[in-house]
Amino acid sequence: MSHIFYFFYGLLLCLSLLCEVFVVTWNLHWRGGFAWDRSLLHFNWHPVLMVSGLVILYGNAAIVYRIPFTWKQRKLVCKLVHAGMMFVALLLSMLGLSAVFDFHQGVNIPNLYSVHSWVGISTVFLFSSQWILGLVGFLLPCSPPWIRSSLKPVHIWMGKMILIFSLASCISGINEKLLLTLNGMSAAMYSELPVEAVFVNFLGMLIVAFGVSVFGILFVKKWQRPEDGSENARLLLTEVTP
Amino acid sequence: MSHIFYFFYGLLLCLSLLCEVFVVTWNLHWRGGFAWDRSLLHFNWHPVLMVSGLVILYGNAAIVYRIPFTWKQRKLVCKLVHAGMMFVALLLSMLGLSAVFDFHQGVNIPNLYSVHSWVGISTVFLFSSQWILGLVGFLLPCSPPWIRSSLKPVHIWMGKMILIFSLASCISGINEKLLLTLNGMSAAMYSELPVEAVFVNFLGMLIVAFGVSVFGILFVKKWQRPEDGSENARLLLTEVTP
Repeated sequence: MSHIFYFFYGLLLCLSLLCEVFVVTWNLHWRGGFAWDRSLLHFNWHPVLMVSGLVILYGNAAIVYRIPFTWKQRKLVCKLVHAGMMFVALLLSMLGLSAVFDFHQGVNIPNLYSVHSWVGISTVFLFSSQWILGLVGFLLPCSPPWIRSSLKPVHIWMGKMILIFSLASCISGINEKLLLTLNGMSAAMYSELPVEAVFVNFLGMLIVAFGVSVFGILFVKKWQRPEDGSENARLLLTEVTP
Repeated sequence: MSHIFYFFYGLLLCLSLLCEVFVVTWNLHWRGGFAWDRSLLHFNWHPVLMVSGLVILYGNAAIVYRIPFTWKQRKLVCKLVHAGMMFVALLLSMLGLSAVFDFHQGVNIPNLYSVHSWVGISTVFLFSSQWILGLVGFLLPCSPPWIRSSLKPVHIWMGKMILIFSLASCISGINEKLLLTLNGMSAAMYSELPVEAVFVNFLGMLIVAFGVSVFGILFVKKWQRPEDGSENARLLLTEVTP
């Protein structure tokens, strides 16, 4: 079965790369590039960091346990890779939030007024809570096995919900940015579908396709990491490499 | 366990009702009500029908098999209720699409230019395909058991993906409508958070909460309808009531 997995995993990696290329190209080519100076170029970090952190890195971190070559590794190694990737994803999201807050402050626009921002900030809040609960529940040696086994289904379910929140935030955010930019400051309105609009709409569809691929990989039971029976009895941070 | 299910099911029904009340009140109180005359009032059917069809009725139809009191019914009855509710949901979505296309034609706005519309039209396309495949695969007597058992996991997974698409479409659509309306024709901009904006942002959060509740109910394995062993061997439409 693993060659079928790797086919879909390859597809996921291609979609990851395409999303990154599209979101960076959009902001470099049409939006003037990047700066960290509270100008409009400061804002451009927001879509790049949110798509990279909340969607691409998050989605890739979510399926780390599904990759067959990681099954030869001790589960603790996988946990640390999963938690590490999620930490970087969370960091990128925080930087992405900071980019939009700083930009708003620079040009005197209120924060958190749109439904995009409400869903988006909830996503980052849930993600932070999930990461901290995951660290305490699954990685701290003092966490008892019953906590781990009770927390696991909640952690898995909440992880999927956060990705759904992320997708809704990204699609509404891309839509908002195109509406505000093209209808406000551009030669061609959004409804006239200039090249930028078509390109960025495709970015939106790629993001959705990426999300669907992640959920596809998570859905197939055969691709789950085989359970280690003694897993729950161990205090994993105290393990020593054999 | 069923009293816990009914607690969450009650919550889902409350959220369903709240979403309906919010989306209708928004369009009645702030957007001038409804008409079917290609005016701006014609557009107001779009959010109401899409939220009602693609989200609320769809979500309720998705969990019909989970309701314990339906387990006493033959599975065919449940299938027909599920398919019937989904059919009405699809019909409402088609009417919702027709409302926005007709309005656009009336005031000469191009169709399908925003990423919201691209994700939205994909949602309705996937939903239509899913409904037709479901009818052919699960309800037509000529469908062989191996088709049913192969199609079932795909149907379940695709059903969840469609709800994710619906949520992303609704959030981006609500955001788009508020941006275009409040920033274009209103005394207070969206960023000044007039009462309408707060009210409709809450509608967005209620829709997301509804989606999360549906996924929560679908996630709990204990709430799945117990399998009828002979199910696959029967041609269900030829069954006679005992």
